[in-house]
Amino acid sequence: MRLVKVGICGLGTVGSGTINLLQRNSELINPRSNCEIIVSQVGARRDNPNCDTSSLNVSRDIFDVAKNPDIDIVVELIGGTTVARDLVMTALKNGKHVVTANKALIAEHGMEIFAYAESRNLIVAYEAAVAGGIPIIKGLREGLSGNQVNWMAGIINGTTNFILSEMDSKGREFSDVLVEAQEKGYAEADPTFDVEGIDAAHKLVILASIAFAMPLDSKQIFTDGITKLQPQDVSYARELGYAVKHLGIARQTEQGVEIRVHPTLVPKNCLIAGVDDVLNAVMVNADAVGTTLFYGPGAGAEPTASSVVADIIDVARTMDSNPDSWVPALGVKTDALDPRQILDIQDIETSFYMRFSALDKPGVLSTITKIMADAGISIEAIVQKEQPATEEYVDVIILTNVTYEKSLDAAVENIEKLETVRGNVSFIRVEHLDQ
Amino acid sequence: MRLVKVGICGLGTVGSGTINLLQRNSELINPRSNCEIIVSQVGARRDNPNCDTSSLNVSRDIFDVAKNPDIDIVVELIGGTTVARDLVMTALKNGKHVVTANKALIAEHGMEIFAYAESRNLIVAYEAAVAGGIPIIKGLREGLSGNQVNWMAGIINGTTNFILSEMDSKGREFSDVLVEAQEKGYAEADPTFDVEGIDAAHKLVILASIAFAMPLDSKQIFTDGITKLQPQDVSYARELGYAVKHLGIARQTEQGVEIRVHPTLVPKNCLIAGVDDVLNAVMVNADAVGTTLFYGPGAGAEPTASSVVADIIDVARTMDSNPDSWVPALGVKTDALDPRQILDIQDIETSFYMRFSALDKPGVLSTITKIMADAGISIEAIVQKEQPATEEYVDVIILTNVTYEKSLDAAVENIEKLETVRGNVSFIRVEHLDQ
Repeated sequence: MRLVKVGICGLGTVGSGTINLLQRNSELINPRSNCEIIVSQVGARRDNPNCDTSSLNVSRDIFDVAKNPDIDIVVELIGGTTVARDLVMTALKNGKHVVTANKALIAEHGMEIFAYAESRNLIVAYEAAVAGGIPIIKGLREGLSGNQVNWMAGIINGTTNFILSEMDSKGREFSDVLVEAQEKGYAEADPTFDVEGIDAAHKLVILASIAFAMPLDSKQIFTDGITKLQPQDVSYARELGYAVKHLGIARQTEQGVEIRVHPTLVPKNCLIAGVDDVLNAVMVNADAVGTTLFYGPGAGAEPTASSVVADIIDVARTMDSNPDSWVPALGVKTDALDPRQILDIQDIETSFYMRFSALDKPGVLSTITKIMADAGISIEAIVQKEQPATEEYVDVIILTNVTYEKSLDAAVENIEKLETVRGNVSFIRVEHLDQ
Repeated sequence: MRLVKVGICGLGTVGSGTINLLQRNSELINPRSNCEIIVSQVGARRDNPNCDTSSLNVSRDIFDVAKNPDIDIVVELIGGTTVARDLVMTALKNGKHVVTANKALIAEHGMEIFAYAESRNLIVAYEAAVAGGIPIIKGLREGLSGNQVNWMAGIINGTTNFILSEMDSKGREFSDVLVEAQEKGYAEADPTFDVEGIDAAHKLVILASIAFAMPLDSKQIFTDGITKLQPQDVSYARELGYAVKHLGIARQTEQGVEIRVHPTLVPKNCLIAGVDDVLNAVMVNADAVGTTLFYGPGAGAEPTASSVVADIIDVARTMDSNPDSWVPALGVKTDALDPRQILDIQDIETSFYMRFSALDKPGVLSTITKIMADAGISIEAIVQKEQPATEEYVDVIILTNVTYEKSLDAAVENIEKLETVRGNVSFIRVEHLDQ
């Protein structure tokens, strides 16, 4: 059997999980890869007690691994986009294939990395970069390769899904659940990347690039987090038959491509509404297959290692074959990717959930419905929530039919000007995910 | 670009869908396969109005296609296991790669076909044989290749899932829904293959073989259909928080491998319980990744064609490369497959739902609970359903903890002997799918 030598850079959660998994399952991994895979070197600044590296060649300089002439595949698990980029480019320049779990690196520097790898006949594999253990890159890029993708909608950040699940099931406040998520290790000390949707945007850019054969471009993605979400909106949504999920959505339309990350109302009877806690799921709707869903753990040592090892097996099995037989990193070769018009959020059509506080007296609702009609927005439902009799103001909830975001903004501006309305209008986009 | 010539055998639902999809999406299929894929010949006894073959070379003899020296890939879409087997073996003997959607053929003759293809350095791809448009073969065989699979549970027959969904949501009788399913084209005129679980068993054998690296063997599978299922059991299950699903289950245990198809109670809050109508879903639980789920349409012209075309793309891209770089048909080469002990249903442990009709008088329940205790079965819940006051007998429902099937059978035999119990004891296996 051919010997394939792997160098692992980074001994954090995923790095130690990968080494453990390669060791534990070597008896089944080797026949699946048609070769013998061994960890030749590990690069890490410090050891990890979760992983026994005593029998391995460990270097404190990760660049030793990238330059080691004995190594075939460099596995980048250090994270970040500066040193990681240098490391991956150094590995490629030294003729090594690369496996990475780094979504930020791929989203921001993927074009440079993939184009260079192609020019050098090297493979860059990154299944673990999106949705952890779910084989969504393979499913989308190869499993659905006969299809034209219409849209995708994914819960692709476990931290925000955990927070929303807790807000929904227990009526808790965002900030309260965040502290628990941090204590449980689901959220970082600085949670910005997760709760502001930046991490989800990185993953969505990668999925959209594969789905629509367009270059990676993380600059133009509309990204809204969950920090401003109020428990009463989650609760009202539930009463109306919806769950609030933080979705990454990409859609092909005649006007261009939508790529956006934001809290979204989805009908409770939609399978993705039942995806709770730190779990991930990606729905893909495509012209031939219809709607599919891929579900599983989106993070964690072993689930992420599952995808890293699957990539190592694929690379080991195919690295010595004709490069034209490899699946291109983004489904087609980089020179066949076509830039697409990415729509401004203002030009995107969805339904909306709106909530505001209005004086409970005759004529108020008719003024509001007139504002909506003037903005060209058709109303699906309007609900005035009962309040204590002592309260002058009541919560008004409106569900709209499909409309442009700019129309909604115009209506919101006019409603907020009314003397009978107090404070701001909250709104959340609604997706039915049914066609 | 390299030209790859495909011959399609069979112009039924899937054959016409495949030709339509290859034509419609050729502009995206070609760059994804790194070659130009053309349909060189079609073999079919008659035309199909859903598909324009006027510009294609059509032969009335499918064996013309298998022997055509000009063709690289033969796509077998005629179904059945006799002519289809001859056709596939003839194609392989003539040096052609094969793509098939035929689950019965793979389950029954896969070992012969795969071993011969390996010896001739040819690819046999069969993604469409299991769960239609869901890329579960690829997901399991490649996406989760670093894992040891613990268990799988799948809704892998759309017909039975449609019937069960209707029985559940509308309280209808099996035979009544079957007629509707036949009218809608979801069920065949002879529905035996679907409703008796034979079709699901074929698919499960394939999945189990990949998951546990064991040879295909469809002889030893415990298979129970849905024909005897009563609406009141579906309704009682719902009241207890369960849905009744027709599952294919495969599990690795210390004693051996379980492979079984039968109606199953699954908790309503389990994602697979929400998979309704003709849709399919497969849960896979494995040591590294944990629990994943793959969901989508399990049948139909275009969903099935989606998988057939994905296979054609994979074969076209890789056929000229080193055969050691190919993914072996069952994940590992045929000589690396290990026969496994398949457990008899009597030796399998599950929980059970039981229902019987007992006299509504003191002492009856204590006799029954003593029988259960004597059989070593621990009871999770026992419910006596309220009946009209005029009725002497009441329905008794028992949910057991995990026990051997042989223990359950012993208890059932003793309960049925009681004079206070009328008729037979109905039972359905229960799976919690939570570890």
